[in-house]
Amino acid sequence: MALEKVSSNKAYEGELVKYKFKSAALGGLDAQFNIFLPANAARGKVPVLIYLAGLTCTEDNGAQKGGFLRDAAAEGIALLFPDTSPRGAGVKGEDDDWDFGTGAGFYVDATNSEYSKHYNMFTHVTKELPEVLTQASLPVDFSRQSIFGHSMGGHGALTLYLSTKQYRSSSAFAPIANPTACPWGQKAFKGYLTGGTEEAAEKYDATHLIKKRDGPVHILIDYGTADQFYKQGQLLPENFLKAARDAGYNEMQVRVRSQEGYDHSYYFISTFGADHIHFHANFLKA
Amino acid sequence: MALEKVSSNKAYEGELVKYKFKSAALGGLDAQFNIFLPANAARGKVPVLIYLAGLTCTEDNGAQKGGFLRDAAAEGIALLFPDTSPRGAGVKGEDDDWDFGTGAGFYVDATNSEYSKHYNMFTHVTKELPEVLTQASLPVDFSRQSIFGHSMGGHGALTLYLSTKQYRSSSAFAPIANPTACPWGQKAFKGYLTGGTEEAAEKYDATHLIKKRDGPVHILIDYGTADQFYKQGQLLPENFLKAARDAGYNEMQVRVRSQEGYDHSYYFISTFGADHIHFHANFLKA
Repeated sequence: MALEKVSSNKAYEGELVKYKFKSAALGGLDAQFNIFLPANAARGKVPVLIYLAGLTCTEDNGAQKGGFLRDAAAEGIALLFPDTSPRGAGVKGEDDDWDFGTGAGFYVDATNSEYSKHYNMFTHVTKELPEVLTQASLPVDFSRQSIFGHSMGGHGALTLYLSTKQYRSSSAFAPIANPTACPWGQKAFKGYLTGGTEEAAEKYDATHLIKKRDGPVHILIDYGTADQFYKQGQLLPENFLKAARDAGYNEMQVRVRSQEGYDHSYYFISTFGADHIHFHANFLKA
Repeated sequence: MALEKVSSNKAYEGELVKYKFKSAALGGLDAQFNIFLPANAARGKVPVLIYLAGLTCTEDNGAQKGGFLRDAAAEGIALLFPDTSPRGAGVKGEDDDWDFGTGAGFYVDATNSEYSKHYNMFTHVTKELPEVLTQASLPVDFSRQSIFGHSMGGHGALTLYLSTKQYRSSSAFAPIANPTACPWGQKAFKGYLTGGTEEAAEKYDATHLIKKRDGPVHILIDYGTADQFYKQGQLLPENFLKAARDAGYNEMQVRVRSQEGYDHSYYFISTFGADHIHFHANFLKA
């Protein structure tokens, strides 16, 4: 699992580096990620905030368009940008739709045999990347990690946070917050999971997972009222909010903010990016 | 010359809008631009900072990757992002090379008859866009405008500033600062101008224009020491700096900063973007 450096760019006195490696979790395919290491990483390990991107995206979108590096540099926090799916698995039809297959891994471990060799983004993000980066001696301290994401990646950030105990905090821009109840999620789960939406409700739906979580949580969600996918019922943040309140989480622990007039784009994300970085810094640097 | 709204995204409490119109300067072709209007533009006209992008870019690169909107919003300044060339002129060979023709207008008015109908980005940026935006009653005050850019767009920002008196200040990231002396510029000028590099030295080369300028100037330039195009001799900022000092401009008026380890990418640009916005704000809001 040796890392190969693909490119490197100095940014905000730190460095954004793209690596690739043979991913066991993704069935031996090449996997790429970007990592931003702030200047202070030269003097010792730094906390890390993982950004999960949305449908059709790669490891580049958040790094290039999120506007996150400036505040991460100021806070002295690394940013890790994984890809959104395996690439080149060769499963029939995986490139046919923009909302399923390539670019749309939904951060699950597939159980359907067609996909289970390669489509294991849950393990890739929660286990493999921390192991691979630590083994490669990158100056990142995975005992201090948090996670955020956009849309499908917001779904990933919430579900990975809620179903493990390895992240200190989670936040999301326009997340798919109740995927078993929306068309995108239903399609993905039917494809990837032998148990379909029932299996997903157990493992991969934030609105269900928040009901089973015990102990305090630290969650921030922003969505825009002009978001076309919100209006289509793909995101359903109200369902998540209701489930959180029903489970006894107050607005100190689960904050869901409706942002007037904002849409689903990276212009929305970058507007609130600084807020999210500083939210996570509170926990990562505690 | 009616403006047609192509898209609109709320950002930093303001709005990023893409428009298109039939451009007379570009021979009747559709031209697109992005404009960021900060929230205060709802209460009256605001100053405007024009961003000229580099080779292969469009009106989108600076808006999406520059990281400029945040500081422009904070300063209450509009940002105008023109395209980098006409699109679809139909000149034979215009799409063959990435450094000439489509995406590479070099901010000149072509005199070579093959290109002179369409390739008039100088007039498009200096005259047509201010007229069209003013006519459409966009809340932008062109008596308070400044200009900046990257690479070929840095060349544009410097030359449009130096050869007119309509901009209050100019800045550039990794500009092609002496284009008649580098391969990119020589190729472009030979193609667009009947008088080739001689004609260009008169009208479109910052290192020559600074010698003829009279009165105070306000210029800021950043370039990275790891910039591959700097190392190839395409940028030549030292030539511009020497010409400026020889012409009597001190470092209060012409500041050229060498940034250790930075390259030619938008990661470099975004790192120093805030500096440039605030530099221009000093003059735009004076």
